[in-house]
Amino acid sequence: MSALQILHRDPGSQARAGVLRTAHGAVRTPAFVPLATKATVKGLEPREVAALGYDMVLGNTFHLFLEPGADLVAHFNGLHDFMGWPHPVITDSGGFQVFSMGHGAVADEVKGRAPTGPDRMGRVLSIDEDGVRFRSYIDGSERFMGPETSMEVQAKLGADIALVFDECTPFHIGREYTARSTERTHRWLDRCLAFHEEHGPPGQLVYGIVQGGVYEDLRIASAQEIAARPVDGIAIGGSLGADKAQMYEIVGWALCALGDDDARPRHLLGIGDVDDLIRGVELGVDTFDCAMPTRLGRHGVAIVPDPANRWRVDLTAARHKQSHEPIMEGCPCPACSGGHSRGYLRYLLKNRELTGVRLLTLHNLAYLARLMVGLRAAIAGGTLAAHAAGLRGGAAP
Amino acid sequence: MSALQILHRDPGSQARAGVLRTAHGAVRTPAFVPLATKATVKGLEPREVAALGYDMVLGNTFHLFLEPGADLVAHFNGLHDFMGWPHPVITDSGGFQVFSMGHGAVADEVKGRAPTGPDRMGRVLSIDEDGVRFRSYIDGSERFMGPETSMEVQAKLGADIALVFDECTPFHIGREYTARSTERTHRWLDRCLAFHEEHGPPGQLVYGIVQGGVYEDLRIASAQEIAARPVDGIAIGGSLGADKAQMYEIVGWALCALGDDDARPRHLLGIGDVDDLIRGVELGVDTFDCAMPTRLGRHGVAIVPDPANRWRVDLTAARHKQSHEPIMEGCPCPACSGGHSRGYLRYLLKNRELTGVRLLTLHNLAYLARLMVGLRAAIAGGTLAAHAAGLRGGAAP
Repeated sequence: MSALQILHRDPGSQARAGVLRTAHGAVRTPAFVPLATKATVKGLEPREVAALGYDMVLGNTFHLFLEPGADLVAHFNGLHDFMGWPHPVITDSGGFQVFSMGHGAVADEVKGRAPTGPDRMGRVLSIDEDGVRFRSYIDGSERFMGPETSMEVQAKLGADIALVFDECTPFHIGREYTARSTERTHRWLDRCLAFHEEHGPPGQLVYGIVQGGVYEDLRIASAQEIAARPVDGIAIGGSLGADKAQMYEIVGWALCALGDDDARPRHLLGIGDVDDLIRGVELGVDTFDCAMPTRLGRHGVAIVPDPANRWRVDLTAARHKQSHEPIMEGCPCPACSGGHSRGYLRYLLKNRELTGVRLLTLHNLAYLARLMVGLRAAIAGGTLAAHAAGLRGGAAP
Repeated sequence: MSALQILHRDPGSQARAGVLRTAHGAVRTPAFVPLATKATVKGLEPREVAALGYDMVLGNTFHLFLEPGADLVAHFNGLHDFMGWPHPVITDSGGFQVFSMGHGAVADEVKGRAPTGPDRMGRVLSIDEDGVRFRSYIDGSERFMGPETSMEVQAKLGADIALVFDECTPFHIGREYTARSTERTHRWLDRCLAFHEEHGPPGQLVYGIVQGGVYEDLRIASAQEIAARPVDGIAIGGSLGADKAQMYEIVGWALCALGDDDARPRHLLGIGDVDDLIRGVELGVDTFDCAMPTRLGRHGVAIVPDPANRWRVDLTAARHKQSHEPIMEGCPCPACSGGHSRGYLRYLLKNRELTGVRLLTLHNLAYLARLMVGLRAAIAGGTLAAHAAGLRGGAAP
């Protein structure tokens, strides 16, 4: 039986709304999942994240593996108790981060950003069938992560949802390498499932990860391979192409290959722009995670209903210096409802004051939380097409 | 008529409890005043500061003068509106910071710390009867601050309580220089009062500052000089000696010279250790400000009822790594009531996570807020001696 109970389906798209049940409670879907990268949503208390309307957060296996280490988190009875978040937790596999060190910063490649250099986060020493040997970016020590390591760490972290360890290929890698890498990812999937069956904590769900790069046949084959396994859910990872149009096409291939009958939850990894969330929901994605809203906030960028500017406003810009306006009129977040002007926020952000970073983080997460509430309600009410058109036209969430 | 209404006097000491009325509301005294140095209590929203029980914050004239500048704050109708804090605001004169640049880091000297070098915060170019010319630590531009500048800036900031511009002498300066400097401070006081009479915003209170260094006769003479002027309150500044015993002696000289009949509010500048607050209250101080609780929090040090360790615990210490204990049992602050263990907080602090800094800031401010509530209640109830003895013995506030 699927952990996801689909309660509503949109007649005009693949969108669905429902409830994802985990060992630590339910997640209303479709849902955005904020990053608690290093066991904290940066700058926020867990109760604030819950108050914003979030049901689940995502912890990063790679970072927590290195610091404070899975054993220390296990000493505290897992991530929930360690960070004081009693609600559902999903952890990634560490694959994305570990391969980011090897492929000339795959993280940047995947997202279409300029590479920032392979040494940014340590260094990969070797990649083979077993897994990846690398130098820790924390202390330079030699470490290893393979499918079993990843699942063992995620077991110690006590994640409600674990993602299997995959090889994450960057955009510039060709078809040949992508095909071989995707096959390896499938072999690693089997090893992850075998380890989990033996050692997984009770109730932990395991998601497979669809790879296959930008190649339609590889994506479809990967989706079918993953779906054929006894996974509890399906995540879509790896390179999603050079632009948004290609990303939607690639996600569509994978979800189409799964078919409507597959009621298992689907997670789209690392995607969180407003337009991508809307389109992803229409394509049938149930959950999304992304560093974007929190990272943008730390850099002074707020999410606003302005499609022409990618739903963003850079509050550090000089034009806001004397502005009495809030980030967004009518927004109930602490920054806007607290009466803070763009001028004051700009001053705080320019002076790297924690309060500014925090207020923007709260605003951005509040925005995406409301966006998802609206999308869920529209699916349930059968009004998704009109609602999505409104959002794309600049309506407030 | 004094802005301070004294409601209770402790029979066994000089302590008094009452209400200090300002243009933006009342301050229950004795009170600790958290620093909103650069128009924000670092990491907190104004409503959180109010919720902790604080009635007033202190803004730093020197920092705000340089960035964002008094005119920008005035554009936003003053500090209250700019930072979204509708309650009382006291601003310092800028004297302490400006002279900190000139005397080989007087800030460190006054506090008995090792000097960190005269260039830490820009550089003094000249000091004369007019005021101080210095280089901005922000952009290296040449700036000037004198008595009139300070009062003009504080007028634009819209402070409820302005402090007059004083020369702040360090500990190592001799009697001769201290005497001349104190006389200059008195001449500057007259210029400040003259400027304020002409240009001060309606309802703004002005406090004089007692100087005189570590010399009894100079302190007493200074206190009498200040008290003879039409000031609304009296602050005690400058070097308070090499240790706590000498500090209490010096504060006692000044307050004794004022006498019990002087009902004007008394502010002790830059003092906020738990034992100093207790003793200061007994000596008859009404308000205190200090960077300590917030600064300690940012460095991972929490305030706890542990007199043997200066009421401090360093949560970054390795011994807390596996600790399930809260910072302080029974503490109602967000860090302790939120169930966060010392082990988790240590991890956050070691990894410089904003959430850790914020939780410790909240804890430390919550501790001092409760300390002052307890002291006020004890004065009102006539039990200060027993209450203070309990606190000194390690009772929770």
